[in-house]
Amino acid sequence: MSCSPDTPTTFALIMAGGAGTRFWPMSRKARPKQLLPLLGGRSLLAATVERLTPLVPPERIVVATSATLAPAVRRELPAVPTDNVLAEPEGRDTAACIGWVAWRLARTHPQATMVVLPADHVIPDAEALRRALRAAVAAAGRGKLVTLALAPSRPETGFGYLELGAEVELEAGMPLREVVRFVEKPALERAVEMLASGRYFWNSGMFAWQVATIVRAIRTHLPHLARGLDELMAASDVDGDAAAVARHYPGLDRTSIDFGVMEKASDVVAVPVSFAWSDVGSWRGLAEVLPAVGAGVTLGDVVAVGCRDSILVSNGPLVTAVGVSDLVVVATPDAVLVVSKSETQRVKELVALLEAAGRGDLL
Amino acid sequence: MSCSPDTPTTFALIMAGGAGTRFWPMSRKARPKQLLPLLGGRSLLAATVERLTPLVPPERIVVATSATLAPAVRRELPAVPTDNVLAEPEGRDTAACIGWVAWRLARTHPQATMVVLPADHVIPDAEALRRALRAAVAAAGRGKLVTLALAPSRPETGFGYLELGAEVELEAGMPLREVVRFVEKPALERAVEMLASGRYFWNSGMFAWQVATIVRAIRTHLPHLARGLDELMAASDVDGDAAAVARHYPGLDRTSIDFGVMEKASDVVAVPVSFAWSDVGSWRGLAEVLPAVGAGVTLGDVVAVGCRDSILVSNGPLVTAVGVSDLVVVATPDAVLVVSKSETQRVKELVALLEAAGRGDLL
Repeated sequence: MSCSPDTPTTFALIMAGGAGTRFWPMSRKARPKQLLPLLGGRSLLAATVERLTPLVPPERIVVATSATLAPAVRRELPAVPTDNVLAEPEGRDTAACIGWVAWRLARTHPQATMVVLPADHVIPDAEALRRALRAAVAAAGRGKLVTLALAPSRPETGFGYLELGAEVELEAGMPLREVVRFVEKPALERAVEMLASGRYFWNSGMFAWQVATIVRAIRTHLPHLARGLDELMAASDVDGDAAAVARHYPGLDRTSIDFGVMEKASDVVAVPVSFAWSDVGSWRGLAEVLPAVGAGVTLGDVVAVGCRDSILVSNGPLVTAVGVSDLVVVATPDAVLVVSKSETQRVKELVALLEAAGRGDLL
Repeated sequence: MSCSPDTPTTFALIMAGGAGTRFWPMSRKARPKQLLPLLGGRSLLAATVERLTPLVPPERIVVATSATLAPAVRRELPAVPTDNVLAEPEGRDTAACIGWVAWRLARTHPQATMVVLPADHVIPDAEALRRALRAAVAAAGRGKLVTLALAPSRPETGFGYLELGAEVELEAGMPLREVVRFVEKPALERAVEMLASGRYFWNSGMFAWQVATIVRAIRTHLPHLARGLDELMAASDVDGDAAAVARHYPGLDRTSIDFGVMEKASDVVAVPVSFAWSDVGSWRGLAEVLPAVGAGVTLGDVVAVGCRDSILVSNGPLVTAVGVSDLVVVATPDAVLVVSKSETQRVKELVALLEAAGRGDLL
């Protein structure tokens, strides 16, 4: 992390610790979603860095990931300095991860602003994202905790929502709105109402704040986590960084930055955005942001005859499909998944079954 | 082919020359249906030999196949003498193949009886088959051309039929019936009528006759083929067997034994049988003779969750399926096929597409 300590400059934290089974068998424990070449050969992680770099150069991009994934993340991001890839000994949710990076930056760049982005979002219009982040960074410079609020495109029940209030005029022309409240994942009926009202936005998990602001907010709203981070940093001075992280990180309080800080803080504003976006929570989610041809969406070596509305993917054997519709087929060299589009959430059951059957080598 | 020339004994000819794409991607040009381990690890060909051996020992079993498949056939049947696996330079249909073997046996075992069986039928009740073949061999001993007639279980439009007449009392208790006529593959309406009448049976492609009888019948009904076979045998004495076959076999008349001989001959009788049988013309056909569990029929490394009426097969990667029904999935190390059960006949289109795309290495 270069730059002299007193330059008011912008860093980015990309959170790339996610695991998950919804892209099994293409995703594995050692190669989760964010590292898969889902976007024409590029990974979601590499695409996230690429979208950011016109705004934040690679040497100011910090990637937090799990210790097991750190080597793969470093290989995936050759432009990002090795030391900027931080390895969590175990996942402690977003508050600990953000706190850890903020505490570190507070020592080296106390005047800095941070933007925080998940590693696994798809945002085709990168310039629209950067415009929003510029506005967020400007608002952060005025001491606000800033979140990006996504205009909803459907009554999604799988996301949290933000109720937005009046516009906040921090500076002429800056499109900010106050955050009235956070809403947990709603039932469908409520989601339909919220969509119709026009006042509710999806909680994106993308943030901006000054390092000093988020440190102060964590000290106020999560004092026990703050104490743990203080201890980690103190131990780092004595025992070195690696030993301190190994010893103290696993004991940090586990909570999300939304629940632990954002919902409680008063100085929260939102940048409302309406660009196309997907968190690629499933093959169906990916299909929504990839171009569809006759058979549906295909990735890799695929030949289809008379197919409709399907998702056909391979990183191994040739996949052929004849006369199928609304089907997801994912082939890898050692495992093939065929699942009805409407049943993709049941892949979890399958994965549990394989784990129980001692087939963990395939997970 | 051992035994002294004048022993009236029984030989078997297994016709194993078939190619075909209906089991692609598991079947390949170099490994057609009859060589696939479809029956709990055994091939259809090995199972055919196994059903026969209590009746005909391996040293009297002759297998005719294509030159390309002969090495694989020999490996598959270690008990059958290498020289008993006869390699056709190219397929010339069943009359040439049967004639060739009959002409050869006429020299070494002129008194012998032959049974003829396709390599790729599934008959779970082997003893029932052998009972029928014993009756057929006995009738053949009385100079008849004998065919096994299968009691139909459905109004199948993909098979030829035999109309059977009165019982023929060759010997007390022997269940034979005269063959009134051969019927080509019928339209569905006609097939339904034939099924209802009780007089129509499926033409099985399984035969028995004395070597002398079939040689005489071919001389009578297919004189030009007979002349070709005479020339082949004469050339064999001069140039050796391999050179004679390579030179003369490809020029033999191409017709089926049914059309060329059986439909024209007058001394044809049938052994009516009603055992379970499948010619395994497709994955659906195979599924009919394999035990079905919850998901349908599975072969190889397969895990299914919430599936119905499907056929899930692998000889390579683990195949997993979730929430699918009426689907055929076949996985091999280099190609995967997913096809709706009702569209399996369109696999031909797919294969043509791959051939045209220069992917013949996968066929």
